[in-house]
Amino acid sequence: MKIAILGFGTVGSGVYEIARTLKNIEVKKVFEKDLSKIDIATDSYDEIINDKEIELVVECMGGLHPAYEFIMKALQNKKSVVSANKAVIAKYLDEFLKTAKENNVEFRFEASVGGGIPCLAGIQKIHRIENIDKFYGIFNGTSNFILDNMYRFENEFVTSLKTAQKLGYAELDPSADIDGYDVTNKVIISFALAYDGFIKNEFPCFTMRNITKEDILYFKKQGFVAKYIGEATTKGNKYEASVMLNLFPINALEANVLSNYNIVTVQSHTMGEVKFYGQGAGKLPTANAIIQDILDIQAKISFNPISIEKKYTYSSNLFKHKYVIRSNEELKGNFEKLDKDGNNLYHYTKEITQTDLLKLVEEKDYLVVKLSEY
Amino acid sequence: MKIAILGFGTVGSGVYEIARTLKNIEVKKVFEKDLSKIDIATDSYDEIINDKEIELVVECMGGLHPAYEFIMKALQNKKSVVSANKAVIAKYLDEFLKTAKENNVEFRFEASVGGGIPCLAGIQKIHRIENIDKFYGIFNGTSNFILDNMYRFENEFVTSLKTAQKLGYAELDPSADIDGYDVTNKVIISFALAYDGFIKNEFPCFTMRNITKEDILYFKKQGFVAKYIGEATTKGNKYEASVMLNLFPINALEANVLSNYNIVTVQSHTMGEVKFYGQGAGKLPTANAIIQDILDIQAKISFNPISIEKKYTYSSNLFKHKYVIRSNEELKGNFEKLDKDGNNLYHYTKEITQTDLLKLVEEKDYLVVKLSEY
Repeated sequence: MKIAILGFGTVGSGVYEIARTLKNIEVKKVFEKDLSKIDIATDSYDEIINDKEIELVVECMGGLHPAYEFIMKALQNKKSVVSANKAVIAKYLDEFLKTAKENNVEFRFEASVGGGIPCLAGIQKIHRIENIDKFYGIFNGTSNFILDNMYRFENEFVTSLKTAQKLGYAELDPSADIDGYDVTNKVIISFALAYDGFIKNEFPCFTMRNITKEDILYFKKQGFVAKYIGEATTKGNKYEASVMLNLFPINALEANVLSNYNIVTVQSHTMGEVKFYGQGAGKLPTANAIIQDILDIQAKISFNPISIEKKYTYSSNLFKHKYVIRSNEELKGNFEKLDKDGNNLYHYTKEITQTDLLKLVEEKDYLVVKLSEY
Repeated sequence: MKIAILGFGTVGSGVYEIARTLKNIEVKKVFEKDLSKIDIATDSYDEIINDKEIELVVECMGGLHPAYEFIMKALQNKKSVVSANKAVIAKYLDEFLKTAKENNVEFRFEASVGGGIPCLAGIQKIHRIENIDKFYGIFNGTSNFILDNMYRFENEFVTSLKTAQKLGYAELDPSADIDGYDVTNKVIISFALAYDGFIKNEFPCFTMRNITKEDILYFKKQGFVAKYIGEATTKGNKYEASVMLNLFPINALEANVLSNYNIVTVQSHTMGEVKFYGQGAGKLPTANAIIQDILDIQAKISFNPISIEKKYTYSSNLFKHKYVIRSNEELKGNFEKLDKDGNNLYHYTKEITQTDLLKLVEEKDYLVVKLSEY
């Protein structure tokens, strides 16, 4: 199969590197403004679209535009598309799938969640036999690196962030990773496969950038490790989802996921909990997942026809959970426990809904963590 | 697709239960001597073989015979076979695959390793892109339950074994689980998919039944948790494998796999370490994996054509590892460290080969554990 790669950055060059080792895939063209990067580069997208030999386009440009237009144009020209671009997929997945179907080609995106970990395939496989009860996980390597670094080396947030930036795990503007936009996108994409429904980013997303060394040490004393978790579940045609810090007991698997690794859990009736662990990002793992999608398309492997037609409505009153809110003033409310540690007050809520939680914290800069139920 | 189930015990009835919820699978007959168990039962295997509507046979009888003959007869009569029977697969996999190929049908066995966890599919997916460097894991839930129970509740081996038996995790004769035959079979089966080669049970397999509460407590003091591990790796056309206790640092994921859960790791160049965690046995998880195989056969999903033609020779001199040997007498040899704890002597070896290890312990009842390198 002859393919084209859009963008020759980290992931694009990784796809090229792995594809070269395989017999059945030939990279014919690379869309790249800097023509000196590789001899098969072109800065004309039309050249790729008009090339009838190219059956599949790998989108590795990132960002919303022109990624959206390029993906649509490829599908409309009857080329399958494989992408790792979370942002554009979480926003336009329904359009991409519809357009792919209309043109009798494929749109695949395993690499967009969990990098090289086959977690989307795992969700699809379970889903073809039974309903998924819930999924949750550490979906972001950068935030996990920072939390792990703070926990193990007792560093301040800023120190750990700087280390992550030095090692190339965090960008100069780390907002997507630590304010939850990246995890939000991954929850939306995983939800589509788990529940056949396309949701918007209307569920609570709390930043993790206000966690301090004092918080980490306080939780450590209580036997807890904080991890940044995305999760979702449904009830009838309603759903609940969140992106926020969760506290795990020290012997939970999640608590022991170190450095920039990811772990994704899928829960269902017959299987119980199945967990997928590995490198959630990076050049070769992400490229590997892209190549897996290409090979699946070649072999016509599909676990279920992807349709995301079901309509789910977000509800903030669906389930109750326990949370811990840290502030430096005492909050009004009926709490289960109130701990004072230095200048910090830790409020342990009873079982409350997301509505109640949002009322408690309003727009204030309190730290909000969920007591993990797993 | 119309199917037959051989054996209506735990797994067989689980397959029936899940199949009833699916549109595309109809259980037409069940081979079962006790005809009162279900209305579609028959005690004549020929009735199943001669039924042209039955396209696929699920073997849930266990044991070597007549499972072997029944599987062969089904394949020869152009019926695909799905099995979870580790013992018969580890012994006859080459014949089954050859006969299936000759008759243009499928032989699948995801459920035989890791119960419901899609770890064999994971191995196959990685293998279609690149060579696998190594695989290892907690492949047996019974032994893990015992070790976890000993560790967390500081019980004697016999007490933990009895608890496992009471809960139905261990059989009255627990030998297959705690003397390593079960894990040996799973290593052989995983090896076939990871390396396209069929090996025999000629590699070292140490029982775990001689580990004591004192050992567990001593290792705990050193920051280690003992887990019963199967693993394999290759170098050229030689391979090394083992089934034995391994020591993991307390914050390793393996150290935190509790109760009767399994975790399997696959290591490769582009992916690094990928781990699959879940219920390695049990009625519904195992049945789920069997149903997954049936759905894959229906959808003609195959990650790579399974051929196990490569010849590998076992070598006990391929790699060097560090081991700990516990005895109550001092062993001769050049050790890195010798610890005395009560009446026990813990000998920490330097990096030595399997040959050297086997020489050191001879046929004696010492406890042998490997220092995990992960």
